[in-house]
Amino acid sequence: MKKILGIALASAALLGSSIATAAEIELKLAHTWPKGFPIFATSVDDYAEMVGEMSDGRIEIKVDSRNKHKAAFGIFDFVKNGQYDIGQSASYYYGGKDPDTLFFTTMPFGMTALEQYAWFHEGGGLELANEVYAKHNIEVMTGGNTTMQMGGWFRDEIKSIEDLKGLKMRIPGFGGKVMAGVGAVPTNIPPGELYQALERGTIDALEWVGPSLDLRMGFHKIAPFYYTGWHEPSTELMYFFNKEKMDSLPAWASSILLNAAKLTGFNMTLQSQHESSENWAAMKSEYPNIEVKNFPPEVIEALRKSNNDLITAEESRSPLAAKIVASQSDYLKKVRRWTEIGDWSYLSNVANQAK
Amino acid sequence: MKKILGIALASAALLGSSIATAAEIELKLAHTWPKGFPIFATSVDDYAEMVGEMSDGRIEIKVDSRNKHKAAFGIFDFVKNGQYDIGQSASYYYGGKDPDTLFFTTMPFGMTALEQYAWFHEGGGLELANEVYAKHNIEVMTGGNTTMQMGGWFRDEIKSIEDLKGLKMRIPGFGGKVMAGVGAVPTNIPPGELYQALERGTIDALEWVGPSLDLRMGFHKIAPFYYTGWHEPSTELMYFFNKEKMDSLPAWASSILLNAAKLTGFNMTLQSQHESSENWAAMKSEYPNIEVKNFPPEVIEALRKSNNDLITAEESRSPLAAKIVASQSDYLKKVRRWTEIGDWSYLSNVANQAK
Repeated sequence: MKKILGIALASAALLGSSIATAAEIELKLAHTWPKGFPIFATSVDDYAEMVGEMSDGRIEIKVDSRNKHKAAFGIFDFVKNGQYDIGQSASYYYGGKDPDTLFFTTMPFGMTALEQYAWFHEGGGLELANEVYAKHNIEVMTGGNTTMQMGGWFRDEIKSIEDLKGLKMRIPGFGGKVMAGVGAVPTNIPPGELYQALERGTIDALEWVGPSLDLRMGFHKIAPFYYTGWHEPSTELMYFFNKEKMDSLPAWASSILLNAAKLTGFNMTLQSQHESSENWAAMKSEYPNIEVKNFPPEVIEALRKSNNDLITAEESRSPLAAKIVASQSDYLKKVRRWTEIGDWSYLSNVANQAK
Repeated sequence: MKKILGIALASAALLGSSIATAAEIELKLAHTWPKGFPIFATSVDDYAEMVGEMSDGRIEIKVDSRNKHKAAFGIFDFVKNGQYDIGQSASYYYGGKDPDTLFFTTMPFGMTALEQYAWFHEGGGLELANEVYAKHNIEVMTGGNTTMQMGGWFRDEIKSIEDLKGLKMRIPGFGGKVMAGVGAVPTNIPPGELYQALERGTIDALEWVGPSLDLRMGFHKIAPFYYTGWHEPSTELMYFFNKEKMDSLPAWASSILLNAAKLTGFNMTLQSQHESSENWAAMKSEYPNIEVKNFPPEVIEALRKSNNDLITAEESRSPLAAKIVASQSDYLKKVRRWTEIGDWSYLSNVANQAK
């Protein structure tokens, strides 16, 4: 260290001594999940810790779960109004606040995690998200991916599109609308009642996440058919920052807050990948009769048509919606050609033969 | 901000005023690449900038490329000896220094980028790397992935294992040894002479990276067969930190240095993914006759056998080598089962039908 810093270092020591008392910048964060909820909520606790560490205690983030603030889907408003400085949730929960928030989590038949991350950070996706959120005094950053979500647990095999007609399935959001378009009956049931509803036949099927979070729900014990994914190929959580607050912070602080959010998201994605791999092995070993199924091609085609109709309606809603749909669709086309000659060819031609 | 911080804030302002003069912590970094080399070197410049920003100028990193230090493969020694505090390179370049460094970049028939990242950060991979590097006074962090590397550019189609016998190919490192095991002749040629060597038939084939970095080399203009990947499914660069120096730094500084390295690596991976997608589209549009080929199954099987023989030799070398090989092999088996029902099923059953 340079001598010229003698005074500054003494001052820094003084600053250090005050850290135990109070941080320079104190921020409040609200997330959607129950306290300690695996992966989704624990990664937010990791975020607060990382920010504290990197800032040498100059930034302190107080994290509130829904147990505290009681409004799982109130994060958008909390951050918009400055009741909280930061939020972590999923963008697609806030279609009621602004329909364009729909596009920034995952889309049926859309990009995989690595493809979508490239779109967000290299293909203009995050800029588009911030164009939408700036209207609400919010700045956003990617917050972590579940990786591929499975198509869900079904009590009976789906052999044709007829088997979906009248099928009662817990599948919320846009995926639920796509399902409704082919005659299924999407229902919403609180998480705590899902197991019993599936067991008693109140519903015929449900989707939750993937092995990472499905294992502890126990659905594999009562619904033996595990369908592969189509409706949420890369569900991304999001950090929300009150824009006014963010703009008032010094550059180093907003840099730490944004970079730590992005890194926490990456860490969460790896944890999802890891837990899915561990939990899938555990499920298969405990319940070897689980059958992994792909939906038959005719079912996929019907779902794709239903999805396309809904997307067409979305993009005709506004020029901004059309711009976002075009950006995603153009990016997907290009990046998928690369995925095909890259990872997919490897997995199909080289790796799977190692089974 | 709290009133109690009045004095501390005044001191912080004083600290701020000295930043323009000199940073509190000045570090030197050396990387393997030419100055400004796309993706690999530019991401290191981004790293230095990110560290400067997040530390509010308290840490300054001076980046030297090989143009300056003249030793592309000297990074390991530079950092070990403290000539540089930080390095960025690829671990597998340093097998001559310690054969166990081989395992921490990518392995033929090994994990894809997302799988390997989960192994590094959730499956114990980084701990194993640090066990190897601690013996050399080095601490490491993942530094960015190329994503899938292609099998290379071939002047002629490979129809059987016979076509590999005597084939002269630029393919360095472990992949080259695997190739030698099936009768090919791996050669090493300086990058600047590769195009001419391939054009004149001095070599019959070469591998470089993937579309992200292959486009500017122009190989697609002279060797029409682009083979899909097998030998480097997820090439990861690495940051090296002088351990003594790192241990002497305050916790906030080492936290910024490590987290910024990990995030820079993630950013580099997304850039590789993006550039591969853009560049592959450009190549195909300019040279529509490029043929993407999978090696025939018998060739893949011969390469796999050659690879297995080499790995068996590696793991019998030492208990630590055996432990690393077992960790990778166990992790791969589990995570690949998840990839199969997750991304691979989606890409095979749902997404590819959109073509």
